[in-house]
Amino acid sequence: MNDLSHYPHLAPIETPADLRRVPDDELPAVADELRQYLIEAVASSGGHFGAGLGVVELTVALHHVFDTPHDRLVWDVGHQCYPHKILTGRRERITTIKKKDGLAPFPRREESEYDTFGVGHSSTSISAALGMAIAAQRLGNKSGSDHRKVVAVIGDGAMTAGMAFEALNHGGDVEPDMLVVFNDNGMSISENVGAMTKMMARAMASRRLNQLRERAKRAIPKQSFMGRFFKRWEEHAKGMFVPSTLFEELGFHYTGPIDGHNIPQLLQALRTVKNLPGPQLLHVITTKGNGYAPAEQAQIEYHAVGPFDPQAGLIKKNAPAKPTYTDIFSDWLCDQAAADERLLGITPAMREGSGLVRFSKEYPQRYFDVAIAEQHAVTLAAGMACEGAKPVVAIYSTFLQRAYDQAIHDVALQNLDVTFAIDRAGVVGPDGATHSGSFDLSFLRCLPNMLIMAPADENECRMMLSTGFQYHGPAAVRYPRGTGPGATLRKELDTLPVGKAELRRRGHGLAILSFGAMLAPATEIAAELDASLVNMRFVKPLDEALILELAKGHDAFVTLEDNAIAGGAGSAVAECLAAHGITLPILHLGLPDVYLEHGSREEVLSMAGLDLPGIRHAIRARFPQAGRLNQANA
Amino acid sequence: MNDLSHYPHLAPIETPADLRRVPDDELPAVADELRQYLIEAVASSGGHFGAGLGVVELTVALHHVFDTPHDRLVWDVGHQCYPHKILTGRRERITTIKKKDGLAPFPRREESEYDTFGVGHSSTSISAALGMAIAAQRLGNKSGSDHRKVVAVIGDGAMTAGMAFEALNHGGDVEPDMLVVFNDNGMSISENVGAMTKMMARAMASRRLNQLRERAKRAIPKQSFMGRFFKRWEEHAKGMFVPSTLFEELGFHYTGPIDGHNIPQLLQALRTVKNLPGPQLLHVITTKGNGYAPAEQAQIEYHAVGPFDPQAGLIKKNAPAKPTYTDIFSDWLCDQAAADERLLGITPAMREGSGLVRFSKEYPQRYFDVAIAEQHAVTLAAGMACEGAKPVVAIYSTFLQRAYDQAIHDVALQNLDVTFAIDRAGVVGPDGATHSGSFDLSFLRCLPNMLIMAPADENECRMMLSTGFQYHGPAAVRYPRGTGPGATLRKELDTLPVGKAELRRRGHGLAILSFGAMLAPATEIAAELDASLVNMRFVKPLDEALILELAKGHDAFVTLEDNAIAGGAGSAVAECLAAHGITLPILHLGLPDVYLEHGSREEVLSMAGLDLPGIRHAIRARFPQAGRLNQANA
Repeated sequence: MNDLSHYPHLAPIETPADLRRVPDDELPAVADELRQYLIEAVASSGGHFGAGLGVVELTVALHHVFDTPHDRLVWDVGHQCYPHKILTGRRERITTIKKKDGLAPFPRREESEYDTFGVGHSSTSISAALGMAIAAQRLGNKSGSDHRKVVAVIGDGAMTAGMAFEALNHGGDVEPDMLVVFNDNGMSISENVGAMTKMMARAMASRRLNQLRERAKRAIPKQSFMGRFFKRWEEHAKGMFVPSTLFEELGFHYTGPIDGHNIPQLLQALRTVKNLPGPQLLHVITTKGNGYAPAEQAQIEYHAVGPFDPQAGLIKKNAPAKPTYTDIFSDWLCDQAAADERLLGITPAMREGSGLVRFSKEYPQRYFDVAIAEQHAVTLAAGMACEGAKPVVAIYSTFLQRAYDQAIHDVALQNLDVTFAIDRAGVVGPDGATHSGSFDLSFLRCLPNMLIMAPADENECRMMLSTGFQYHGPAAVRYPRGTGPGATLRKELDTLPVGKAELRRRGHGLAILSFGAMLAPATEIAAELDASLVNMRFVKPLDEALILELAKGHDAFVTLEDNAIAGGAGSAVAECLAAHGITLPILHLGLPDVYLEHGSREEVLSMAGLDLPGIRHAIRARFPQAGRLNQANA
Repeated sequence: MNDLSHYPHLAPIETPADLRRVPDDELPAVADELRQYLIEAVASSGGHFGAGLGVVELTVALHHVFDTPHDRLVWDVGHQCYPHKILTGRRERITTIKKKDGLAPFPRREESEYDTFGVGHSSTSISAALGMAIAAQRLGNKSGSDHRKVVAVIGDGAMTAGMAFEALNHGGDVEPDMLVVFNDNGMSISENVGAMTKMMARAMASRRLNQLRERAKRAIPKQSFMGRFFKRWEEHAKGMFVPSTLFEELGFHYTGPIDGHNIPQLLQALRTVKNLPGPQLLHVITTKGNGYAPAEQAQIEYHAVGPFDPQAGLIKKNAPAKPTYTDIFSDWLCDQAAADERLLGITPAMREGSGLVRFSKEYPQRYFDVAIAEQHAVTLAAGMACEGAKPVVAIYSTFLQRAYDQAIHDVALQNLDVTFAIDRAGVVGPDGATHSGSFDLSFLRCLPNMLIMAPADENECRMMLSTGFQYHGPAAVRYPRGTGPGATLRKELDTLPVGKAELRRRGHGLAILSFGAMLAPATEIAAELDASLVNMRFVKPLDEALILELAKGHDAFVTLEDNAIAGGAGSAVAECLAAHGITLPILHLGLPDVYLEHGSREEVLSMAGLDLPGIRHAIRARFPQAGRLNQANA
């Protein structure tokens, strides 16, 4: 990617300041080259793709019109930030994105002064931008050249989350000078759903109605009664033709919609709204994947990609040798749904990621994509459970954080029969700290009534899902990203005895208590050290009987998990020992008290000391006599 | 309250079935007596008041028109449920509300089949009702007499929270048969704020515009071009005159507004919308405190009250002998604001409860009430911090659960300089499990970068707030409801050394490590047992040096906190010992793994075993030799 000879317009642009010196009429050429560069880069290295292609022109126009980084540009979610990163001094490093020591896949404050707000989860941009706008004003940055502009760029998918609405409601109240660019492409990762999406679609179809309005206006003298009436009406009734109503009712001045791939239109609109006072909303219509035909046609597949041939497009992957945990969930959900008609499946806008594609096709009446709305997803499930349904909420660990109060207040406190299928628990890898599932065991296990399980392999995952589903109360199964060890799957919907761990190996000296995905390295090490090994299975309730029995016959415990050590499953073991008045040396291995950098899942596990060498080293350092002593005892 | 001779209409109504046999024209008399009964009851026992007074007629009408409990009635927040409880078999017990073994202050499923969904936190009702409506339909309850109606009653205050918007957006998409009664009284606990509130006010003022519209309509022949145009316009432009637009755009059929204190109007409207298909929204205008003049005039003061004289109204309380922790925060906030102009104060609709009244008056430009919108409150603060402001988010522990992801993803992960002033941490008492601050130490201490403090007295609370404010990163001070031990306050804005505990007593044998508000009983017991006593102050980072030193010189540790034991502060001490390879008996005292029932704060602490006798008993039971042995050693 260092040969820029094909990019004569892009090559000289090292920073947005360079871009601002480019005349307006050359900007389309810059955008075209930026798009080609992006295609070439992502084809070679993989990454988020469709969202970036959709905002090439918008990115060029924003950095041209606004004085970044003095003016603040806040990208929502951040899938869309690749063109922004290319234009802001990171062009040569763009192929390192998501890789260890490479660029982060989302805007990140530590990485660049142009990344004003770290993102990853959606729908935060309006709140953050509003905070920036208020602070800039209140701290006296209002006058002269110091007058800072603040722009949030948010997609229609992200707009469905409640916190975006909360921010609009507040922004319309305090009326700061700020701009929200509403990037309307009809997509989040999947197709958008929800009433707002329908509203947008209606509005877009109303060009004929718009012509009608213009004709009516011309027919009526301005100063007549009807003319005055029309003026009042016009102020309010734009919602008839464009989806302004929602925003205008909330106090944002609406402009648009405009073509988000037309640079002259974008420049004109941005220059206009830039200098308008108060909260502004610019509605921009774009196409996800724009300018690369395969990505326009298959927007879901091209949301994020691995390396591919730009000419041929994505190659159909061969079925992988092993199913992912997501696949395991996907099959279980359909099988369980066939066996029990009370099962209803819920996803907050992650049909593909969470493995609900097949279920959505086979059981469309029992499938609920609630849009990006985790809070609602969980309380909706609670309401369903009140009526005897058995809802299953499929959600990533990191996104369950968005519905924590609902999990506590609406589900667990009422002891309602909701099953949480928590994907991407533990280390996730390339998406980095914002997507890491590091905390779910800590924040869930303090909740009374919760049943919490972590599978060591695929078949156990399936059994745990059945167990959680049959359990009459709130249950969570948390499983990692990617594939497991490749266990043989049973077709049945067998359950596990609640609160029973599995003693895998009886050894001497040390007992290794392994939670979930860490069993594979634990098995090797237990053999090396002739240690006992337990696949704990249940984080809550713990198998106290087994723990107490092992405590009597061993010199020390090692707990092993891919959750934060702080308050995690190992900590629960220590609490159990303390509650029973047992004193035993214990080594907690798990995620350290730092936010994990991105890299492959294996690299991140290694950074966290949770790969085989790391675990071996930690145990040997703490218990240098382990294995040797034990063999002497044996 | 057992003499019902003054309530001839109310007396025969034991259940809603009785109410449904009352002829329409006698319902106003029932409502009047219900209101008098409510006034008499709350005057004698205290409780939530204004919200209940505002929905007397609505409650009567709903139970009259709908076939409860077969039809589902979901009350949002639940402050407003007293009339509902009186009409649903709990009339005689209404004066026990909030008291130990008495009625819960909010709807609660375990208490009555008429309480369809447990609430306490706002804005959950539409999600829950939607879940019920979907489940009733999907599980085959659709036909004949089994056709269940579902009604959510939500206030305009609660409508500002994002999850209500998420639910509307989803409801308008799946189009179930359900009714949302939008109870518009312009208030939450304080006055409502936000753009939606402004919109409602505009709409209500538009009667003149409405007349204008009618005049224009009559002037134009129906079949003319303009007549056809008008018809189109009418369908869309209601938002010009009534606040229907927002709801209709989201797919809800809007009816209203109607007078929520006029029973014939209510009956007519409810009977109409009851049989309309699809999602319905009925807009009802009520007055908080209606029918009791003092409560109408002082709506904030009468939101929740202690016992009072119905004739004289509330008596101005004498200034209490001791300030509450909320008062300590209130004064600190103003003092700190005076000292540092970068301080901005944020509350999600809890100006009074969180102690921001004085700040809001003295620093109106630096005060931000964001409405019930905890998620936005926290990310707004993050945005402010990006620009060099020093925001302080004042929030109850239980409501911070609503903003957990924002605290992680937007604040802690980016290490932004936001101070959380967490009120009502630990045991809250009368408001019960939904409001208990039982989990904050568990869910916060697993987050890297967080500084977490818990004060043992008022002056320490003030110093910790200063410490958190000066700390350049995310900091939390969590303090309990009510008053503390009455420490002398220093006027200065002194800080504490970060991560340093305070050794209060050097004893023998046992070391009691006390977190926050538990220091008072811990002091007595330490003296009784000649134990060492530490006021830990910092939950994160722990004073590891002191812990290690004490571990060497003591036989055992007792940790003491008013947070869940699971993953709490004591668990952090155990992790610290384990990390340093130290083995020591440890007794964790804290909140047990159950949801705490309501009662006075003292009663609940006692139920949890965290009053002086409970703590003494637990320590002596575990360490029967403590004190005796130690004195022998000394």
